[in-house]
Amino acid sequence: MQEAYNELNEKLAELSDIGAAGALMGWDQQVNMPPGGAEARGRQMGTLGKIAHEKLIDSRVGELLEILKPFEEEKGYDSTEASIIRIARRGYDKAVDVPPSFTAKWQKVTSDSFEVWIKARPANDFKMVQSHLETNFDLCKEYADYFPGYEHPLDPMIDNHDFGMKASNIRSIFSELRKELVPVVEAITSQEPADDSFMHGHFDSAKQIEFGESIAKLYGYDFNRGRQDMAAHPFTISFAIGDVRITTRVLEDFLSSALFSTLHEAGHAMYEQGSDPAFDGTVLRGGTTIGVHESQSRLWENIVGRSKPFWGHHYPQLQEKFPDQFANVPLDRFYKGINKVERSLIRVESDEVTYNLHVMMRFAFECDVLDGKLAVEELPEAWKDRMESDIGARPPDDKDGVMQDIHWYNGIIGYFQGYTLGNIMSSQFYDAAVRAHPEIIDELGQGKYDTLHTWLKDNLYSHGSKYTAHEILKKATGQELNIGPYMNYLKTKYGELYEL
Amino acid sequence: MQEAYNELNEKLAELSDIGAAGALMGWDQQVNMPPGGAEARGRQMGTLGKIAHEKLIDSRVGELLEILKPFEEEKGYDSTEASIIRIARRGYDKAVDVPPSFTAKWQKVTSDSFEVWIKARPANDFKMVQSHLETNFDLCKEYADYFPGYEHPLDPMIDNHDFGMKASNIRSIFSELRKELVPVVEAITSQEPADDSFMHGHFDSAKQIEFGESIAKLYGYDFNRGRQDMAAHPFTISFAIGDVRITTRVLEDFLSSALFSTLHEAGHAMYEQGSDPAFDGTVLRGGTTIGVHESQSRLWENIVGRSKPFWGHHYPQLQEKFPDQFANVPLDRFYKGINKVERSLIRVESDEVTYNLHVMMRFAFECDVLDGKLAVEELPEAWKDRMESDIGARPPDDKDGVMQDIHWYNGIIGYFQGYTLGNIMSSQFYDAAVRAHPEIIDELGQGKYDTLHTWLKDNLYSHGSKYTAHEILKKATGQELNIGPYMNYLKTKYGELYEL
Repeated sequence: MQEAYNELNEKLAELSDIGAAGALMGWDQQVNMPPGGAEARGRQMGTLGKIAHEKLIDSRVGELLEILKPFEEEKGYDSTEASIIRIARRGYDKAVDVPPSFTAKWQKVTSDSFEVWIKARPANDFKMVQSHLETNFDLCKEYADYFPGYEHPLDPMIDNHDFGMKASNIRSIFSELRKELVPVVEAITSQEPADDSFMHGHFDSAKQIEFGESIAKLYGYDFNRGRQDMAAHPFTISFAIGDVRITTRVLEDFLSSALFSTLHEAGHAMYEQGSDPAFDGTVLRGGTTIGVHESQSRLWENIVGRSKPFWGHHYPQLQEKFPDQFANVPLDRFYKGINKVERSLIRVESDEVTYNLHVMMRFAFECDVLDGKLAVEELPEAWKDRMESDIGARPPDDKDGVMQDIHWYNGIIGYFQGYTLGNIMSSQFYDAAVRAHPEIIDELGQGKYDTLHTWLKDNLYSHGSKYTAHEILKKATGQELNIGPYMNYLKTKYGELYEL
Repeated sequence: MQEAYNELNEKLAELSDIGAAGALMGWDQQVNMPPGGAEARGRQMGTLGKIAHEKLIDSRVGELLEILKPFEEEKGYDSTEASIIRIARRGYDKAVDVPPSFTAKWQKVTSDSFEVWIKARPANDFKMVQSHLETNFDLCKEYADYFPGYEHPLDPMIDNHDFGMKASNIRSIFSELRKELVPVVEAITSQEPADDSFMHGHFDSAKQIEFGESIAKLYGYDFNRGRQDMAAHPFTISFAIGDVRITTRVLEDFLSSALFSTLHEAGHAMYEQGSDPAFDGTVLRGGTTIGVHESQSRLWENIVGRSKPFWGHHYPQLQEKFPDQFANVPLDRFYKGINKVERSLIRVESDEVTYNLHVMMRFAFECDVLDGKLAVEELPEAWKDRMESDIGARPPDDKDGVMQDIHWYNGIIGYFQGYTLGNIMSSQFYDAAVRAHPEIIDELGQGKYDTLHTWLKDNLYSHGSKYTAHEILKKATGQELNIGPYMNYLKTKYGELYEL
């Protein structure tokens, strides 16, 4: 039995190593690669993906997982051994149900679609990419058919990103959240918009990076086991527990971009760095679902990084770094500015309050298209209409409308919900940490993050992907997924800011 | 037949892609990786190496190579098809003769040995690493035994680096060269040493990099298909014809280090970038032997980059960049300084003339140890004695004696000869280019390198690894390997410098 377990682990370590090589190729592509390397890199990453897939669906893996059933039971659900077997089985079962020919087609189709989107978006030409998007949604349905018994055709995709969730659960929690959010957005946006003009101006790149990294370090992101580089789109990527990297994008004329992206990515990265070191090279390394991952980036970016106590401590340092820009901006004005709520067009630039409405709209469109209620062709207009009715801002074009996000065009469908699930959970985790250690609030005002980080590490990060989102939420917070803490957070914070 | 050929090519492309992933991991390890990533990276690179080896010795590859024999013949030796099959067969035949258990042992032993050397060298403690070095040499003999019929136990290793060469050929050409070199060294070092004090001082890093890169660009190193980064030991690495990267090391107090290393690595890189684009993803991409590769780095570093016409053109630019250091140093003094010949201890810092004596000594020791004429235990003293008699400088310790080079401690045996073969061939290639285009000499004095680069590209680079060193030398220069042009180059250049 122990032998079969060792054999399985060797196979999984091999997969993890190939995955790390592929991830490094992806990181390099966005951070370092000279333009001439693009063509070969695409082929090389495809080869690695193919080898990994072949090794994942190797029938010997299936045999080992079968052999190991009694061993798994004996060790018990919470043991590392049983967890490795359980998570490996989940991946194996899902992978073997899909024919390799589909996987190859999927890769080709979505990569072609991405290449077209790259050109169609700046040209504001949805027609150019429309048939590709139709194919992507069609293949999404075809994918679902490999998992008969699904409730909704989006479910098998959702399951890949937010294991254990279904369209029906998400619909129900989103409709609850929507009911609560809309009046808050209405109340705020009927007031005079906050002034954030001081975030625009000229900010030296090196100083921006220095400031952001100094906070990431204080948060507990370990630069001995990571580094920050520049990339067009900020992301976190992990090659091992000892090597978790972040990227950021610096705009010299807008301070928020690099600063808050660094805090956001540091949240993701601390989650990855915090895995039990014994999980390295196993399926348990790194975070569990997209939603839980996003809860950590949003917790450190927003709940901590846009809070009043945080800036009470760090604002004088920022003023010292950029005296020309901030000498005459008092803390209160700064705090209100970085938490400005507005009816805006672009999801990734939107504020904490309206952000979720952007997400819900995308999720609803995914369901509608797959349900046949909405044709891809109708998406551009539907997008504009819903932006107008939901957010109160009608996009003047498709470039900043239906074509703004890379996801669908790259075949990433059933993913957006994770961002809002993350927002909801961020407050659940944070509140639980504060319940356990009320001193966290005071510490934020002193630039100390150890107690919060340690609680998160012990109760969430160290478990890697051992538990589902549901399980870890219950374990860490004692609660089911619920919007109470998040709405409470928003209402308290913005109630005070806008005297609601 | 075409089908079998396509199948072979797919398999070879897969191998090339895995190789590129491993190479990227190695590059990243030396350029970017945070310290925490080291452990996992070792494992990940090992996994990729193992997968590549398994795929290389896949019996289907052997079958295809057999099936393709008539196809190869039909296409003809010079065709891309026959060349791919021929070079693939060479790699396959050599790999299948070695049991995987030996390959695994070799990897483990040499990596352990390297780890010990890393500590033993700064501690100046040869005893610490002696048994590891003994094992490395023992395994080298064991490796040879998988290729019965070798003339000398070093031959199968030499063959991996300088295909087609044997210890006996090298011995004979080295003894010829030695006879010619020794009197030159004697004659020069009996004179007053050249002054190169102006190369020491303070040189701003960014300016150093800028200057070196501007020359590499003029040479024709394409930064759209490459980049330069910092690393502890300069090297060139290639992931595709469109992505060939170089590294350098900047010393703020010594100008030669970064400058000449950039010119050296640019030479290697232009060779790799110059492969026929159709060779990407095949076994023909990149250079042929170590010796030929080194001929290109030395050609661009030394024959061009330390020549009088080169500096006649570029020295005013260097003076402008570093006026404090060079305003009062006339060109002649500068030229003599960068070509200073001296009795020095360290191979990688030694001049063009004595360099080959350092190499010959290492090669002779490899032969002697494998022949049982010299025990590893006796190496430190033998090293000191030979340094004294050959170079006229006795190392005061083993750190800068027998332990100075990484090669042996990392299992790289039968490799050093390539450096001197490269020097010899650099003059053969250069002279052939000048015979074809006498205007090259004038162009050097105008900072123009197109004619030289184009000739090298057409006659050498574009052929990738299609031809052996012997074949390409004959094709490009019309000559066999011979020391004539190289000794002529040295005697003319240094004869003038030292009025011999």
